[in-house]
Amino acid sequence: MRRTIDFLLHDWLQVESLTHRERFKDHSPETFSAVLDTCERVAREVFAPVNRIVDVEEPRMNPDGSVWLPEAAYTTAVAYRDTGMIAATQDYEYGGLQMPSVIETAANAFFATAGIGLGGGAMLTTGSANLILAHGSATQKDLFARHLLSGRWCGTMCLSETQAGSSLSDIVTRALRDGEGSDADPFGPRYRLHGNKMWISNGEHNLTENIVHLVLAKIPGPDGRLIAGVRGISLFIVPKRLIDADAQLTGEHNDVALAGLNHKCGYRGMPNTLLNFGEGRHAVRGAPGAVGYLVGEPGQGLSYMFHMMNEARIAVGLGAASIGYAGFAASLDYARNRRQGRPIGAAGKDPLSPPVRLIEHADVRRMLLAQKTYVEGSLALVLYAARLVDEVRTGEGAAASEAHRLLEVLTPVVKSWPSQYCVEANSHAIQIHGGYGYTRDFPVEQYWRDNRLNMIHEGAHAIHGLDLLGRKVRVDQGAGLALFARQVAKTANSSTAYPALADYGRALEAALRRLLAATAAAWSVPDPEIALANATPYLEAFGHVTIAWLWLDLAVVAMQKLDGASETAASHLRGLLQATAYFYGYELPKIDAWLAVAAARTPTCLEMQDEWY
Amino acid sequence: MRRTIDFLLHDWLQVESLTHRERFKDHSPETFSAVLDTCERVAREVFAPVNRIVDVEEPRMNPDGSVWLPEAAYTTAVAYRDTGMIAATQDYEYGGLQMPSVIETAANAFFATAGIGLGGGAMLTTGSANLILAHGSATQKDLFARHLLSGRWCGTMCLSETQAGSSLSDIVTRALRDGEGSDADPFGPRYRLHGNKMWISNGEHNLTENIVHLVLAKIPGPDGRLIAGVRGISLFIVPKRLIDADAQLTGEHNDVALAGLNHKCGYRGMPNTLLNFGEGRHAVRGAPGAVGYLVGEPGQGLSYMFHMMNEARIAVGLGAASIGYAGFAASLDYARNRRQGRPIGAAGKDPLSPPVRLIEHADVRRMLLAQKTYVEGSLALVLYAARLVDEVRTGEGAAASEAHRLLEVLTPVVKSWPSQYCVEANSHAIQIHGGYGYTRDFPVEQYWRDNRLNMIHEGAHAIHGLDLLGRKVRVDQGAGLALFARQVAKTANSSTAYPALADYGRALEAALRRLLAATAAAWSVPDPEIALANATPYLEAFGHVTIAWLWLDLAVVAMQKLDGASETAASHLRGLLQATAYFYGYELPKIDAWLAVAAARTPTCLEMQDEWY
Repeated sequence: MRRTIDFLLHDWLQVESLTHRERFKDHSPETFSAVLDTCERVAREVFAPVNRIVDVEEPRMNPDGSVWLPEAAYTTAVAYRDTGMIAATQDYEYGGLQMPSVIETAANAFFATAGIGLGGGAMLTTGSANLILAHGSATQKDLFARHLLSGRWCGTMCLSETQAGSSLSDIVTRALRDGEGSDADPFGPRYRLHGNKMWISNGEHNLTENIVHLVLAKIPGPDGRLIAGVRGISLFIVPKRLIDADAQLTGEHNDVALAGLNHKCGYRGMPNTLLNFGEGRHAVRGAPGAVGYLVGEPGQGLSYMFHMMNEARIAVGLGAASIGYAGFAASLDYARNRRQGRPIGAAGKDPLSPPVRLIEHADVRRMLLAQKTYVEGSLALVLYAARLVDEVRTGEGAAASEAHRLLEVLTPVVKSWPSQYCVEANSHAIQIHGGYGYTRDFPVEQYWRDNRLNMIHEGAHAIHGLDLLGRKVRVDQGAGLALFARQVAKTANSSTAYPALADYGRALEAALRRLLAATAAAWSVPDPEIALANATPYLEAFGHVTIAWLWLDLAVVAMQKLDGASETAASHLRGLLQATAYFYGYELPKIDAWLAVAAARTPTCLEMQDEWY
Repeated sequence: MRRTIDFLLHDWLQVESLTHRERFKDHSPETFSAVLDTCERVAREVFAPVNRIVDVEEPRMNPDGSVWLPEAAYTTAVAYRDTGMIAATQDYEYGGLQMPSVIETAANAFFATAGIGLGGGAMLTTGSANLILAHGSATQKDLFARHLLSGRWCGTMCLSETQAGSSLSDIVTRALRDGEGSDADPFGPRYRLHGNKMWISNGEHNLTENIVHLVLAKIPGPDGRLIAGVRGISLFIVPKRLIDADAQLTGEHNDVALAGLNHKCGYRGMPNTLLNFGEGRHAVRGAPGAVGYLVGEPGQGLSYMFHMMNEARIAVGLGAASIGYAGFAASLDYARNRRQGRPIGAAGKDPLSPPVRLIEHADVRRMLLAQKTYVEGSLALVLYAARLVDEVRTGEGAAASEAHRLLEVLTPVVKSWPSQYCVEANSHAIQIHGGYGYTRDFPVEQYWRDNRLNMIHEGAHAIHGLDLLGRKVRVDQGAGLALFARQVAKTANSSTAYPALADYGRALEAALRRLLAATAAAWSVPDPEIALANATPYLEAFGHVTIAWLWLDLAVVAMQKLDGASETAASHLRGLLQATAYFYGYELPKIDAWLAVAAARTPTCLEMQDEWY
């Protein structure tokens, strides 16, 4: 994996150019490598050995309402904290390393590959801190964000409720102005929250002395009613244990209680909880209601959350790609060592000949190539997106705004394509192992289960199709889509310098034309219900075109490097070229079936009636 | 499910015509219904309520080497036995009901839907008995097959070894002529077996007083060496406990010992074991070696097994289709009752409007339609194949031989297509449930795990692609393929009577042409390694053409029945037509990508080198 990541970072994304920017001026290729070295080592030595343990010993609820976690949850949380990665991209002022997002993302790939969900929910903690830094008051930053970033406390995101998952506008958690407080409260305007939150990752544990919940809730109007829709939603900081102005625990438990644990099919290293806010079990100063502090302006909660969404979705794509990579590596190793069967044809007719290694069978190679294109293509996509995040933050003038525009278009793909195809990759990894892959004696069945979550959280799969076809390719008169198309065309054009790649360049251009035509055809009617009836097949096609584009871009670099490469390096580059051949031969042609229904606005699903099933 | 099965059996396959045949003359549509009624009821009342229990409480090895199973394993085994289904298709002489295979298969769908792997491994027991009835001596039939069919004992199939799964020719279990015995032994020529068997379903338990293992082993030549390849393999009956000539236990335990249990990702209702034969723990009469009785002729073991393979593979397809159906039913129910989100477009803009049911979202309908086409298409395929089995057994003259020929071609598809696409269906069922689907609070994640086994056992997926493109479409100068093509063309032709179906008929004919052309193109070179390099994509395309054919055949029947149908019946028929529209709009076009590589003999996978990954 390191070789792939180094190629992507240095040969392809040319990350050393970032070190010339003011924000990253203390960095160098050497500091980048040192970070990757450390993370790779900690992941291998601390995370990987306990990945099965946290699967088998899933979180339990203790009689006192706390959460039991295996020892491995603690050791990996401490190990991750000690790498300094929680605050890696932050300002020096907040204890950060001012590291580029693309390096942070690459470094986190090692942890996600070794054990998804381990490390104490650090990415959630980073995300919570980012949210407070972006929208909180100076005091909130200093009291909450700082201690999240140091790893002293963990953070959570409390959005969903049992009746409101994909539909956050329907949340009913209430936030009532707390009579005791005043606007001068150093933590911000004080409220009491009442409601139940569902699907809260890391919502309760004793990994750290405190947990900082970021909670979406509605402030009732003067008539006591909740404002319907997203405009009524505000964001609150709700610490599990109350703190004083010096960030010390006051000894008071906030009115937040664990209502239950979700027993997941996989991804068990991190507890997933139902939390009750304000049920009175831990009434604060005699009154029920969880004490919470408003962040920013009332009614802006969801828009604040959405600011963080791009990065959260890159993190999901990264998790999916990394678990995919873990399965690829395991099945490649198995295929290289396990002997079974004989070659097809004359060579295999002699039963006295020794069995060959699995990797010598064409179909095993196919399953390995499919995995390679899925997981390395996903990794390329995720790192490309993280590089865009750096450009948004540190690029100059048009570069930053262009990067933002492209990132907006790509985000639905970054979240959804790896989530879908890296589960498929994990299924191939099982298949290569045969019956062994279906047992707990090998890691691949766990990867497959772990990875299945990624199509569900951070916006269920279909949501991203609607986001892409319904918004992202249309905003600003399709400027984002046009920018995407220019990037794709640029790669197709640069591939013409290499005769070996010319067919792929033409295929990519043709695919892009069909994609653009399908986009226009879908929207050739005014009714969005009809235009969007096949948004998911459209998403699949868009994803395949995106990955085809990236593979060709990698292939161009591979061709550039092939001359004069060492034998080892040349083998790796030839593998990239063969993977490109695979993707263009076996995968890209699939877009026709998906685009056909999107372009024709095929009404089959829309017209299906409940009673016909 | 019952409505679908009734439609398939009566309206489509017209099973009542079977009752005019001598073998089935005591049967009638009423006896068929009575069997289905009973099985549906027992499955619902006894199997379904314990399906999660056997998943959570997986089989364990007791300190004494026996297997602990939850109570549910016992109650479902007894309930299944009491239905009389173990011997359903057998002769009256063996306690059977002389039921058509197609009815038996349909009845078993209820059990597999309610809980795969429950019922005491009855299908294995039936299969073992069939094998003995087909190839055993009169005494073996009377002593072993009879008590398997009564449900007194269970049967197993012991083929694989740790080093030999897909490659059975490499087994090394040895069978040595037992000095004490004589050819006059009533049980058949006696041998002592030494070796280790892997992946033995139901290999050890106390569900019944005895277990009858059917074991593949090699008889060494005069020089003591094993004959290489499949010709050296013989078949033996190895009872767990020895019996006397009256089929009573002698009190002696055979030298068969449980070496371990495989901890599976799913399908946990049935223990899966490693068995040691002849390790000496239970030495019989002072000598190590498991006592086994030769079935039929030496060296014929694998060919005997293959006689049973078509039916075993139909059973796998049935299991896959049934688990798929379970997920479809669960997610349809959930989508009908769960409210979340609002419609796209003007109607959904008002946040005060109540959320709509999930089923009102186009993408949820898409995932339900996809499931419907996968699981009902699979069920149609499996029942069609079972109907061919009946034709092989009871058809007259050319009808029987044609049925055999068609069944041979279809068997790889019957095994592999449901196994692949019904896992996909189960994944859609999870997705419709959102986060809930990923938890143990709902059954769908278990279905997805349970179903994943089906692509692995009874021949791993790729084996069937090689079987199909390498043998089945080529034997007898392609007579089987030609017969398949005639059946497909017949359906396409009959669809022309209905203008609403005409497009599908043309699409099916075009797909068939491309399939036949790709078959020829693949074999336009002499080297089988090149011809078969894309056998798996070919298998996928062949499967999709097959399912498209069956859906159009169902649609023709639906059109015939639509005139004058009751409102309820008409709704069901319209659902079949909409599913046909879905399959032709969204699925059949996918074959182009698969057939392109098969026809072009794309060498990408074949040429990939180990060191390039």
